[in-house]
This record gives sequence, C-alpha cells and structure tokens, in this order.
Amino acid sequence: LQTKLPEVGTTIFTVMSALAAEHGAVNLGQGFPDFDCDPALVQGVNAAMLEGLNQYPPMAGVAPLRTAVAAKLQDFYGRRYDTATEITITAGATQAIITAVLAVVRPGDEVIVLEPCYDSYVPNIALAGGTVVRVPLTPHSFRPDFDRIAAAITPRTRAILVNTPHNPSGTCWSAQDMGRLEELLAPTEVLVISDEVYEHMVFDGREHQSIARFPGLAARGFIVSSFGKTFHVTGWKVGYVAAPAALTAEFRKVHQFNVFTVNTPVQHGIARYMADPAPARELPAFYQRKRDLFREGLARTRLDLLPCEGTYFQCADISRVSDLSEPAFCEWLVREIGVAAIPMSAFYGGGFEQRVVRFCFAKKDETLRAALGRLARL
Amino acid sequence: LQTKLPEVGTTIFTVMSALAAEHGAVNLGQGFPDFDCDPALVQGVNAAMLEGLNQYPPMAGVAPLRTAVAAKLQDFYGRRYDTATEITITAGATQAIITAVLAVVRPGDEVIVLEPCYDSYVPNIALAGGTVVRVPLTPHSFRPDFDRIAAAITPRTRAILVNTPHNPSGTCWSAQDMGRLEELLAPTEVLVISDEVYEHMVFDGREHQSIARFPGLAARGFIVSSFGKTFHVTGWKVGYVAAPAALTAEFRKVHQFNVFTVNTPVQHGIARYMADPAPARELPAFYQRKRDLFREGLARTRLDLLPCEGTYFQCADISRVSDLSEPAFCEWLVREIGVAAIPMSAFYGGGFEQRVVRFCFAKKDETLRAALGRLARL
Ligand SMILES: CSCCC(=O)C(=O)O
Ligand SMILES: CSCCC(=O)C(=O)O
Repeated sequence: LQTKLPEVGTTIFTVMSALAAEHGAVNLGQGFPDFDCDPALVQGVNAAMLEGLNQYPPMAGVAPLRTAVAAKLQDFYGRRYDTATEITITAGATQAIITAVLAVVRPGDEVIVLEPCYDSYVPNIALAGGTVVRVPLTPHSFRPDFDRIAAAITPRTRAILVNTPHNPSGTCWSAQDMGRLEELLAPTEVLVISDEVYEHMVFDGREHQSIARFPGLAARGFIVSSFGKTFHVTGWKVGYVAAPAALTAEFRKVHQFNVFTVNTPVQHGIARYMADPAPARELPAFYQRKRDLFREGLARTRLDLLPCEGTYFQCADISRVSDLSEPAFCEWLVREIGVAAIPMSAFYGGGFEQRVVRFCFAKKDETLRAALGRLARL
Repeated sequence: LQTKLPEVGTTIFTVMSALAAEHGAVNLGQGFPDFDCDPALVQGVNAAMLEGLNQYPPMAGVAPLRTAVAAKLQDFYGRRYDTATEITITAGATQAIITAVLAVVRPGDEVIVLEPCYDSYVPNIALAGGTVVRVPLTPHSFRPDFDRIAAAITPRTRAILVNTPHNPSGTCWSAQDMGRLEELLAPTEVLVISDEVYEHMVFDGREHQSIARFPGLAARGFIVSSFGKTFHVTGWKVGYVAAPAALTAEFRKVHQFNVFTVNTPVQHGIARYMADPAPARELPAFYQRKRDLFREGLARTRLDLLPCEGTYFQCADISRVSDLSEPAFCEWLVREIGVAAIPMSAFYGGGFEQRVVRFCFAKKDETLRAALGRLARL
C-alpha cells in the first residue's frame, strides 16, 4: 500500500507519553494537566445527559454554547461574532484547524507556516493539496520575522497560520506584532488561521492579542480555541472556530462532512459552566504560579531557561548539560533521569540547529516537585 | 471568497429538521431516536468523569473500548481484529469515512459510489482530490448491479464505498452479493470502505453481512460503525474503524491530524456498557416491532411501501398520492400534513427519476402513531 503521507509517523506526543509510561518517568512531555477539572463541569455534563440531551445537536453546535462563546469574545476582545453565522463548535482545536485548511486551501495554493509549529499544520496543508511555505521564527527568541514573512507572500499565498501564545516556545505576539501582520496583509487576500488555544494562559500582566482585536485580521481570519485547554479537560475534545460569515459558511461545508457535529451533553455542560467567567479569568494567575515554581527549580540546574510569556510550556536550552542531539537527549532524559520532555525539533520540518527541549508545567505541584527533584541531577 | 465546494449547501437533514421545528411537524426526517438511551450508559460516562478520566486518551482510543469492539467483531462476524493495530475509535462514523477517504484517495484516483448514498461520501472524495464514479443501484429495488460495478472499475479505481444495511433504501446485501463483490475485486487492488452503521438493525431473521465475514473483502476493507446508532445516542458522536494493520496505519496518520482522538469518558462509558452484549443483540427485535407498527399504518394510505430489510428507515413511493416532485412533496408534507420526511433525491448527485421519500421510524410508538394519524389524510 503506497502511503499518501510518507513523512508522517506517530506524533511525538504519543511516542513520548508511551516512553514515559514504560520507564515510570514523570511525564512533562505531552501537554495535558495531571489534575482534574472543576467538579461543577462534570455535573453540568451529567445533568445534560440525564435531561436526555443525547441526540444530534445542530450541526454548528448547541445555541447556548455558541452564545457563551460570543459573549466571551465580546467580553475579552471587544468583537461581536454572530452566534448563528460566525461561530461553530468543533471536536477540538485540531479538528478546527484541519477543517479550516480543507475549507479554503485549494490544490497548488501556498500556505505560510511559522516554524517551529504544532505538528498537525503541515500534514493538514498537504492533505488539502497545498504547498507548505515554511518561514522560521527568529532564532533563539522565537519572534515573527516580518521581513521574511513579507518575502514569503506571493500571488499564490492563500493563508498564513499563526499561533499565539506560541506552542512550543511560550512566546506571545505583542499588539505591535499583530499590527504589523495586519498592515502586511492589508493589500493582499491572504486568509489567517489563528491558533489561540492558549489564549487564557498569558503571564506577567500581558493581554492575549487575539486577531479578534484587529479588524483587518478578524475580517480575514479563523480564530481557533479549545475548551479542553481552558477548563482542564483535554480529553473532552471540544473547541470552536469564530470567523466572519463568509468564511464560516465555507468552514461549515467541510465541517458537516467531517464530524458533522460535536458531543451534545458535553456542549451543554460547558455552556452552563461558562455562565461564570471566573475560571477563564483566573487561569493566568493559576498557571503563572506553576510556571514560577517550575522555573525556580530549573534555574538551579545547568539548563538555560528561555522566557515563558504564555502557554503551559517551559523551554530550556540543553547545551551546557549535554552534547546529545535534542531527540537523543529526550530519550536519555526519560530513561536515565526519569522525566519526559519534547524535543523542539519535533516542531520543525527538518534541518533545525537549536538545542532546546520543552517541558509542560500543567501539573500538580507535587508532580512538578518530583520532576525537579530528578532534574536536579543535571 | 471563491468556494471549494460549489455544489455543497447545508445538509438536507439540517434543513428538514429546522423546517420540522418551524412548522411543529412530527420529525421523521433526520435519522435519530426521539427516545432516550439506557440510563446505565449515562452512569458509565458519569462514573468515568468522576474517576478523573478527563484527559487525552491514546490517539487510537482507550484500550477497553478497542477490546470491546474486537470482542464484538469476533462474536458477531467471526473475525479477529488486533486491538493495538487494527481498531481505531472515531468521532462518529462520518469522521471515520472522511478519514479513510483522505488516508487512501490520492488526487486523480477514482472512487466508486453506489447511488443513492449518504450525502457526505461525494464531498469527502472531492476534498481528497479524487474523481467520483457514480454507479446506480438497480431502479426501484436498490440492489447492487454487479455488471455496472464491474464496468466502472478501471486501473485508476482506488476504492469503492459500500453501505449495508442501506441508507436510505433499507435494503440489505445478501451473502451472495458480498461474495460477488469479493470475486469482482479479487484481481484488483481496489480498497473497500464499508459503512455498516446500521449493522444491528436487520429484520425478519436476516444476518448482517459485514465485510468482516468475507476474507477477500476484509483484507482490503475499512469497516465503519457507530455507537451512537446502536445505543441510541446519536449526539455522542463516537464510532470506530476496523481495518487490517497496513490500512489502519494509513488511517491513523490522518486521524491523528484530524481529530487526534475522541472524548475519553464517553469511550470508557461505552466500553463498560458493552460488557453486556444484550443491547446490541436485542436491537433487531426492538426496531422490527417499530417498523411493523409504522408499516401497518402507512399501508392504510395511498403511499406505496418499499421493502424494509434493515436500518431504521422506511421508504415509500408517492406517485399515487401526489404529482409534486419529491422535494416539493416533502415541503408540502411538512407544511400541510405536519410530518417531515427526506426526499430520496437528496441521496443522488442529480438527474434522479424515482418518486420516493424516506421516513425514520426510530421514534417512540406515540410519535409514530401521531405521524400516522396525520399521514392518514394521504
Ligand atoms: C494532541 S497531543 C499534544 C498536546 C499538545 O498540544 C502538545 O503537547 O503540544
Ligand atoms: C448526520 S445527520 C443525518 C442522520 C442520518 O444518518 C440520516 O438521517 O441519514
């Protein structure tokens, strides 16, 4: 059987989680909390199931959840999205991204990705028959390089995928960055697919710069987010897309023939939970404390810490600790030290020179302390 | 914005459900039960949530559910599928089908669909860049026409999509039909994508002819099924794919970058529920009784009933009742009679001549009686 995706193996997250389990390592690899969600959220889903809300919801998602998302976007970013025509509930952010790509990228279209990037973007574009145009973020600092982005835009450019707060680096785009992107795209018809799944994890008083705040970007953009990340239920697989009506219409054409729709009681449970804005509002402080705890410990090793402005990931340069390549280092780390991390190179198409690994700090304090105890040997 | 799918509107199921709601009609259109699932199933999902099973499951699905599916396939169809390498849990059957199509259909490949067919197949193939080759089922009787299928196979044929029990017609392939398909494909490398979501709804003592029973088909086939249909939870959006390891490997390459994985507590809840094989075993008798109730009532109108061997759909010819086209008849029916049905033409690419509409009888007896009361005017 000839494969359509010769370069695709099993995602690094699955590989490292399996290796961590095998070696009894503390798993700071794959990004997910090892603590549980708010019991109120579970109660909401159970209540919906008991009320008999177990059959197909509307294709675009249940009205209360679309309404909750619109209220949130208005509240946080000051932009109105119409619940009927501009918001669609998805089976997680990954499904939202591939659906947006399949909906707008035609064979031969060019799509710009900024590397390092989440590992689904490139295969998503390949499946749509698009050509991937890789533009690196700035070395070491992982910032958008607008000269290189500008140089990558051609008449065939259909879309650019952006992601802030940025997985894996933990950097956040500033308002000025967003303004420059807006300016750059103004004379073009390039669409924006904006992966904002870590929108509520921004630290040190930062504000998340959603494309919703920038009219020139919002008008051409799909905003993708994830309830799983925000509410500590990565296994529930629910997210959403907000986009202008014309883009949403195209999105839904594919969505209805991809998953058709998303788990009904889970949607109702999340909608009820979102009536209280506190959980999302409190998330930055919650994760900032964990970041600080983890950074303080890591600072006592010979790992060199990169800044962490957002996300629940902390990156570190391994140069002073090891001569191994990052993937070899991560394998050594899980086997010999008992901590799983993700090599930054997994987020690149190839030929990557840096020596950085990523740790997830969305963990109980005791898990972070256990990991730090082991990492102290470095 | 130029659309990639110019022929795609909103699915007929969504349109008719909305129209039914608007007119207070009895909704026998979109296929879903109006009764609730077994409370034990809800309890299982709630228990899993309370146990904290709320983070990412393995990409292929949780082990207990893959094990339950393998046991079921062995029990019902006598074929062993390996839980680690041959079974993948999906976000419903629709997502399973598009993922199989995207995994194996390359641009320019031909894919045979037998019309009438479920409305996602054709756009799925278009999104993969494949060429749709439409072969009609036999007129009126909706059986596979093997001469026409044979004539449609070319060196470019990559796959054929088959569906039994058949939506919308309610026909079932016989063992002989399956044997002929097996024979026909033997000298080819054509793959089979087998939509078996109604596998447990077969009547009058029939056995479902899964491709799992036919080694020559199973070896080249993806079996797609749906827990939502079997357990009366269409809104939960969980299904599975069983396929030989080489096909499953390709499937998972796309699956991991489409939805990545499927709701964890729902998977556990279904796995626990499947420990008891009775619900699936009892389904044929459960739906046969409803079919008989509904047919007896319809037989008193001037609608001409088609046979219903399986599925939860009953088709009827409208020729003696109305001169309207089917879509116009369905609109009239919802407005004037107060019953929603689906025009058979919605399952065809175009140029369809028959005068058939589809009713869903997965409804409470009282709902069926209410619909029959209104339909008595025909
Ligand atoms: C879908 S598994 C990966 C989770 C994640 O977002 C990450 O670790 O980067
Ligand atoms: C996904 S909505 C349609 C449900 C269904 O399978 C049908 O009515 O044919």
